[in-house]
Amino acid sequence: MVHTTETGRSCAHNPYFLSMRINGSRLLQNLEALGRIGGLPGGGVTRLAFSAEDRAGRDFVAERIRALGLTPRVDAIGNLWTVRSGVRSDLPPVMLGSHTDSVAEGGVLDGALGVLAALEVLTVLSESGVETAHPVGLISFVNEEGVRFMPDMLGSLYLTGSLEAGAILGISGTDGRSIGEELARLDMAGSQELRNQPIHAFLELHIEQGPVLEREQLPIGVVTGVQGLRWLEVTLRGKANHAGTTPMAGRRDPGVAAGTLVLAARRLTEDVDGLRATVGRMVFHPNLVNVIPHEVVLTIDLRHPDQVQLDAASEWIRRRVFDAAAQFEVEARVRETASAPAVAFDGTVVEAVTQAVQDLGIPARRLISGAGHDAQIMAAHCASGMVFIRSRDGISHNPLEFSDPEDIVAGANALLGAALLLARGG
Amino acid sequence: MVHTTETGRSCAHNPYFLSMRINGSRLLQNLEALGRIGGLPGGGVTRLAFSAEDRAGRDFVAERIRALGLTPRVDAIGNLWTVRSGVRSDLPPVMLGSHTDSVAEGGVLDGALGVLAALEVLTVLSESGVETAHPVGLISFVNEEGVRFMPDMLGSLYLTGSLEAGAILGISGTDGRSIGEELARLDMAGSQELRNQPIHAFLELHIEQGPVLEREQLPIGVVTGVQGLRWLEVTLRGKANHAGTTPMAGRRDPGVAAGTLVLAARRLTEDVDGLRATVGRMVFHPNLVNVIPHEVVLTIDLRHPDQVQLDAASEWIRRRVFDAAAQFEVEARVRETASAPAVAFDGTVVEAVTQAVQDLGIPARRLISGAGHDAQIMAAHCASGMVFIRSRDGISHNPLEFSDPEDIVAGANALLGAALLLARGG
Repeated sequence: MVHTTETGRSCAHNPYFLSMRINGSRLLQNLEALGRIGGLPGGGVTRLAFSAEDRAGRDFVAERIRALGLTPRVDAIGNLWTVRSGVRSDLPPVMLGSHTDSVAEGGVLDGALGVLAALEVLTVLSESGVETAHPVGLISFVNEEGVRFMPDMLGSLYLTGSLEAGAILGISGTDGRSIGEELARLDMAGSQELRNQPIHAFLELHIEQGPVLEREQLPIGVVTGVQGLRWLEVTLRGKANHAGTTPMAGRRDPGVAAGTLVLAARRLTEDVDGLRATVGRMVFHPNLVNVIPHEVVLTIDLRHPDQVQLDAASEWIRRRVFDAAAQFEVEARVRETASAPAVAFDGTVVEAVTQAVQDLGIPARRLISGAGHDAQIMAAHCASGMVFIRSRDGISHNPLEFSDPEDIVAGANALLGAALLLARGG
Repeated sequence: MVHTTETGRSCAHNPYFLSMRINGSRLLQNLEALGRIGGLPGGGVTRLAFSAEDRAGRDFVAERIRALGLTPRVDAIGNLWTVRSGVRSDLPPVMLGSHTDSVAEGGVLDGALGVLAALEVLTVLSESGVETAHPVGLISFVNEEGVRFMPDMLGSLYLTGSLEAGAILGISGTDGRSIGEELARLDMAGSQELRNQPIHAFLELHIEQGPVLEREQLPIGVVTGVQGLRWLEVTLRGKANHAGTTPMAGRRDPGVAAGTLVLAARRLTEDVDGLRATVGRMVFHPNLVNVIPHEVVLTIDLRHPDQVQLDAASEWIRRRVFDAAAQFEVEARVRETASAPAVAFDGTVVEAVTQAVQDLGIPARRLISGAGHDAQIMAAHCASGMVFIRSRDGISHNPLEFSDPEDIVAGANALLGAALLLARGG
């Protein structure tokens, strides 16, 4: 039996620790088994938050926790967690995890990988009888996706104290049912809280959901932070008129202002390094071939790893909206419909992941997460970080989501290695 | 009794002819009465082609034709017409008219004005016992609007031989019923054909449906032609991707190409005098705030009074579509969904309207029609022309459509004057 000690001896350079590996085929089997819960005939999965499938998915994890001789715990809104004791009972745990809810017709890896890899880490630790200085735990957050119930990342927002249980229970879903009703119906809520307990570090393994690692032929990414996000909804109002009888002079066509903004957003990304800007939604009213629209609504999704640059880009776009409105004599309104600050992950955690990947001899690069994750919410509460694995074609939120089994195993081993480094104490 | 004669004596300069006027209050009462058929509680009218309301509207006109001692005639697709004999039975008639079908929630003047003003001309001729050299007739075309059944201007397309009855009867409407079924159900078809008979001239009184006359404070417009029209439907296909995780480089975003085209179309109107270009329809797929669209469909409505310039503009836009597609690495397809050639009205008819307006002492200007009308179809068959009256705010196809009663009466008197000039023979 190998002990990590308070003297700070580097476990990572202990040959036994270096040679510890997760059981790849068991992890892949677990992923496949969980993927059958809410599984779709053509592949992929639908496990919407607070549904019977979600509950069944959580039971699947809880049973496997119990099989390790650990106690599954559930908090007031359904977050599922467990902690494996460390040598020092006074040290806060290193928590590993993600979520097992999915979007409608999503992939089997998004979220599930992070939870089942954490389970695999605990399993390997138990099997090998390793005692870590810090406890090591697993957490599966509720409602990360925010598809049926808004907001997304609900479980981590609750755990970090940003949302209270009372408010969460009252949230109504797209089908009119409240989270409180569903928790009661599915007997999914518990009373054991992790929210008031200190956490040493939080680490989440996830598929990249983007093309960067694939393009550079790298299996693993060391995530250094999460882009900040701003969603702007722009409403432009002009005057509907007959396309044939209305001279060009004096038209008040919000569609032309909208076209200007689509190009302005794209051009801004050429000027501001690291900025991503997307016009994903565009609705014309009345949307008829021979009628000048009277109203156009469009959205602009802005992302940047640096909060100052994100704020500046958002401000520039707002000004550009009103410039375009003035130019084409239409009225403009801008509403911010979502906002998430840019997050830089904790240096210790990033370093632990970097070290673990190096120890495994796997080629990797540092990168910023483009999508939102529970880890960015946890970062406000404790040292946090993420490990990414390569996604085929960058596809996610789709049954076609896929990562190579070899990359899945490599990612889980990186999670194990980083967890051991973070849990060594000292 | 006053006779127009074959010797070509100018009736317009005969004091009796010059002083002939339609009965304004009767015309306004008829407009109001027809407006109650399919009338809407808040104003406006819905008399969709080949509906019970359409049939009732046509009966309203037929009864008034009968009351003049004339015979209402109906052709195989429901066009309603009558002819008042002239002095010379060998001369073809001067036909006046328009349509009584409407769009859903349209105005009470669009179409109805041209038919009821023609009825009023026949009424005044009958009351005064005037004998014209050419017969003078009225025609109310079916399905000018093309809302329920495509194409629009169906009645005039049939009359001029562009469409055959067999094909027309098989056309299915937006509710799945065919024109043939509806004609049978409503007993709306007849067997007396105008299509094989020569017509001396066709003249249509209509509201402008645009802002030009109002801006220049002129009650009447002498229409010299109708703009040509091209509808292009552009489909742009790229690749859907996550707005957060997909770097800007390598995106294939059809929305950006669409934005480029909206601006290109607008800029082209600055370079090509007389060109009108409108992007009225724009549909993003999947149309989600955080997803790069994989497909965008947009329409471009192009109009120009000169066919050569219209063709050139259409060609330029097509090239610009493929340029933009290449620039943003998306696929493009362009489909022409409608086309109508630019029409120049017959000089004799334009001159007759000009003379009639002058004789009335009404300020007027020549202008081009921005919208499509039966008169432009008739122009391929016989000398044709139009008289416009001022529209408030240029609004039409809307219950708010309105023209000043004084302008309505002035327009009908211009129609009467021009008809007398065209019917004088010689």
